[in-house]
Amino acid sequence: MRYARISVGGRAVWGRVGERDIEILSGSPLDAAGFDVIGTVPRARAHWLPPVVPPVFYAVGMNYPRHIAHAGAATPERPEVGYRANNALTGHLAPIVKPAAVTGRFEAEPELVAVIGRTLRHATREEAREAVFGWTVGNDVSARTWQHQDRSFWRSKNSDTFKPMGPWIETDVDALAQTTTLRVNGEQRSSFATGDMVFDPFDHITELTRHNTLYAGDVLWMGAETVCPLEPGDTVEIEISGIGVLTNPVHLEGNEQ
Amino acid sequence: MRYARISVGGRAVWGRVGERDIEILSGSPLDAAGFDVIGTVPRARAHWLPPVVPPVFYAVGMNYPRHIAHAGAATPERPEVGYRANNALTGHLAPIVKPAAVTGRFEAEPELVAVIGRTLRHATREEAREAVFGWTVGNDVSARTWQHQDRSFWRSKNSDTFKPMGPWIETDVDALAQTTTLRVNGEQRSSFATGDMVFDPFDHITELTRHNTLYAGDVLWMGAETVCPLEPGDTVEIEISGIGVLTNPVHLEGNEQ
Repeated sequence: MRYARISVGGRAVWGRVGERDIEILSGSPLDAAGFDVIGTVPRARAHWLPPVVPPVFYAVGMNYPRHIAHAGAATPERPEVGYRANNALTGHLAPIVKPAAVTGRFEAEPELVAVIGRTLRHATREEAREAVFGWTVGNDVSARTWQHQDRSFWRSKNSDTFKPMGPWIETDVDALAQTTTLRVNGEQRSSFATGDMVFDPFDHITELTRHNTLYAGDVLWMGAETVCPLEPGDTVEIEISGIGVLTNPVHLEGNEQ
Repeated sequence: MRYARISVGGRAVWGRVGERDIEILSGSPLDAAGFDVIGTVPRARAHWLPPVVPPVFYAVGMNYPRHIAHAGAATPERPEVGYRANNALTGHLAPIVKPAAVTGRFEAEPELVAVIGRTLRHATREEAREAVFGWTVGNDVSARTWQHQDRSFWRSKNSDTFKPMGPWIETDVDALAQTTTLRVNGEQRSSFATGDMVFDPFDHITELTRHNTLYAGDVLWMGAETVCPLEPGDTVEIEISGIGVLTNPVHLEGNEQ
């Protein structure tokens, strides 16, 4: 099943995504209370929102052997997570706005995202597996000069629109057996095995929940194998087979329309 | 005015705090829709929750000259923010649970917290001032061994219960003209001028909103001048004059009751 959040009449609603239409739901599929179908909208006219706004936005850094080797970094010896911020989230087809003040490398990072479905603490690997509600696609857009200048990622990775996520949450897929492909203006720039990670999502969830409670709606971004430069005017697509394609145009600040 | 969130019949509700009673509200004072008073509970029997669960949880690091000098750190040349995580939040009177695995220094950090009241981008200093809904008290509990071992603050500062906040949001106070006092088991351990900061909340908000949109309910923790060791069995109180006293007992994991 594919679940999305869309804007209908200015209001955020959950939807169940079909081939042609999206069924509008009365509630969240993450909520134990359940939901009814209360309408439909044609998929072609949907205004896509980030498929979830997480209570906590977890993000894994160095997690692909080839990325670690390229960066000359040490391979992590245990799962660790950092954080991203909800203000930066944006949906499928919405613009990534490059701030006018950004100089130097401005790059996409294609990532698998796990969406947590239930409250979880002290999870076994099997419980971790069962607690993942579904999977979506994220683009960890990064401004490298700020990343090197600042003590935190507040500007480099968390400026508004720097975290596209979507288009939807796919609940029925073996996410680690897929292929991640990045295209810019329709041209393939990289392709890698989604599951070729140092520590997989379930490793991270078991480690995390030794000390932290996870909640329904929390997201865990799994890191990228490659990065790719972006320019205003570009359109970037990240496809994870079996999940979907996240597409975003790149605009320059002051030139958003 | 003092606004709090309390648990009534297992449900989180907003309240307006009086001397003896808390008026239960039908909605959030942060919501433009307004609210009605729908009941009261005696203040002495209140189950206090964190006064807000923020969309984004911002936290300033080194921000008090004496703390910076003590740490041998460089004085920041511009406002910068990091992040904390909502799973770690807990309310007034709830226990701080020290994980059994923590070794080394386990410490309190008394902090002023600004609660944002409206959506804000490209704010002037005057707009930043007007956008602060009110002020509360935070304790940035930190496990130093983990802080030094890990690449992020995920365990050291964001384990469950490591972020007490409360008891309420005070809307009518000149927060920067106050005194912050830390007591352990009733004994004063430190006292400092709350406003003696390198960059104040309005400096941070103007800088932040150059690239990030702030939203109603976001919180900005302002850093601490001092730290203080905590042991299981202790009770830690942080008072900011004109705002309130945040009190939490310290328990050892496995010994929570």
